[in-house]
Amino acid sequence: MLSFQECKNKIDDEITNFSFVNHRPIELYEPISYILSLGGKRIRPVLTLMSCQLFTESIDEAINPALAVEIFHNFTLLHDDIMDKAPLRRNHPTVHRKWNDNIAILSGDTMNIIAYQYLCLTSNEIIPELLNVFSKVAIEICEGQQLDMNFESRTEVTIPEYLEMIRLKTAVLLATSLKIGAICGRATENEKQKLYDFGFNLGLAFQIQDDLLDAFGKEEDFGKSIGGDILACKKTFIYLKALELSSTNQKKALESLYTNPNMDDKSKIEQVLNIFNDLKIEAMAAKTVSEYTETAMKALASLNVSKSKDELEKLAYQIMSRKA
Amino acid sequence: MLSFQECKNKIDDEITNFSFVNHRPIELYEPISYILSLGGKRIRPVLTLMSCQLFTESIDEAINPALAVEIFHNFTLLHDDIMDKAPLRRNHPTVHRKWNDNIAILSGDTMNIIAYQYLCLTSNEIIPELLNVFSKVAIEICEGQQLDMNFESRTEVTIPEYLEMIRLKTAVLLATSLKIGAICGRATENEKQKLYDFGFNLGLAFQIQDDLLDAFGKEEDFGKSIGGDILACKKTFIYLKALELSSTNQKKALESLYTNPNMDDKSKIEQVLNIFNDLKIEAMAAKTVSEYTETAMKALASLNVSKSKDELEKLAYQIMSRKA
Repeated sequence: MLSFQECKNKIDDEITNFSFVNHRPIELYEPISYILSLGGKRIRPVLTLMSCQLFTESIDEAINPALAVEIFHNFTLLHDDIMDKAPLRRNHPTVHRKWNDNIAILSGDTMNIIAYQYLCLTSNEIIPELLNVFSKVAIEICEGQQLDMNFESRTEVTIPEYLEMIRLKTAVLLATSLKIGAICGRATENEKQKLYDFGFNLGLAFQIQDDLLDAFGKEEDFGKSIGGDILACKKTFIYLKALELSSTNQKKALESLYTNPNMDDKSKIEQVLNIFNDLKIEAMAAKTVSEYTETAMKALASLNVSKSKDELEKLAYQIMSRKA
Repeated sequence: MLSFQECKNKIDDEITNFSFVNHRPIELYEPISYILSLGGKRIRPVLTLMSCQLFTESIDEAINPALAVEIFHNFTLLHDDIMDKAPLRRNHPTVHRKWNDNIAILSGDTMNIIAYQYLCLTSNEIIPELLNVFSKVAIEICEGQQLDMNFESRTEVTIPEYLEMIRLKTAVLLATSLKIGAICGRATENEKQKLYDFGFNLGLAFQIQDDLLDAFGKEEDFGKSIGGDILACKKTFIYLKALELSSTNQKKALESLYTNPNMDDKSKIEQVLNIFNDLKIEAMAAKTVSEYTETAMKALASLNVSKSKDELEKLAYQIMSRKA
């Protein structure tokens, strides 16, 4: 069986071998090669391969569907970056900054279609089911992004609303990545569902861990500056939990810090973090991450397969304890 | 057999029955209902149904794939309108104007995925082939849009380059709409190809007719103002043909008219049309439309089916002689 790292190498090799060099017009394909070459953890396609190998010796059938997941994910990043006016992605200029908005819209559209092409480069007998789950999650991700945009202009967001947003924007794709691997491995409905549940809860843990790192991470591990979400006034789990637990005065202070445009970045972050610390938010959010991870692990434990699940388990704990 | 009008009514009914009313978030689905409700000729899905009924009594299997084609087409209009900064579509505000760019990007992305969902709401046995031809044409349309954008910033565009652009941007989707119907009707490879060729040449005729109407149409028939392409400095077939045939002086005059930003709209259109008329461009372009239509008709004539092809023929001649 392949380890996480071996699966990642396989995906990286496949992506390096993509050749859009002879594709025309070049203006359309250069940004696609560019964003795919920026790297990243490749967690989603790796989950597809690791899930498939729980059920079958050869994971060949899962490779193209795994690439489909990664291409689709990068397409959503590309379009999200336009919508968020983000200047950087993985420490490089975003496509809409390096080229322009029109190029970013159109090369993103093309990637969405290419993802479908890769998804279907597999056995005919599983194509209808793959398409079904893939289109479902693709729509959910768009819905999640819309909710995320809606939150920006809303003053009140509840924690259940936030969880619904990250369910759609993050968790279902991790869940579906695993399910797609299971479909390629000809798993039963019950087995597919257990892997979906594992990925789903892992996805929620993953996103809250992201929110945590942005506030409490160490810059030298995290690789970017701390407090980005605070400066962007993001209504993260951390922030919403703080609002929920704060006294009237703390709540007023938090809200006025978030809505004050004339404040120095460093002191804004410092004052917000002080309130977070007074409320012991870090420990509380870490507990939530643990709980979702535990639920994920239970779903995985209930899956009865002869192959070892060690690598998937290891990955889950890595996600929970990651620093970047 | 259903007439063109009966097929169109069927498509319009299906689209009216779409219900995204209960879909959430509403911000994502309202623009989708809106653009689909703006109407239009529905030529592409109608071609799918008409093609299918050449081979089979029941066209039920073709309805969802036909809707997929129409939804995809409207998705491309939605994103093209952002890129072109177009204020109006079918005499109504475009989605990015009525809402905003982000909403237009994201609801367009969602439509692209919904198109795939409809495409696959048919018999499993034909899904892989449908996906194959659909993804191929979808990519071609993105390539065509990119070429069209490239032309804006280029000073020299040749007629072959222009034809390649409209091949990708327009002709292949008409061709594929017919091919999809033929696949649903279980036609042979040879039959599919003939319908593809018919639609392909019809598509080229259709686009050049569009260019013609924009310059020489009558506003009362056309439903919008004449000369829009001239004011937008579009390198249409008409303009490129005029450049090709013009004397040195006429060429200079044309180019300076197109690049003069300080000129009154009405007199710019008048002077450009004067040059077009001196060069007899209208008759020449009309001849090209006729030639492509004839090539289309020959492909259709060579198709040997027991059902009547009259309605498709009629449609082709309508396209050639349309005034709007």
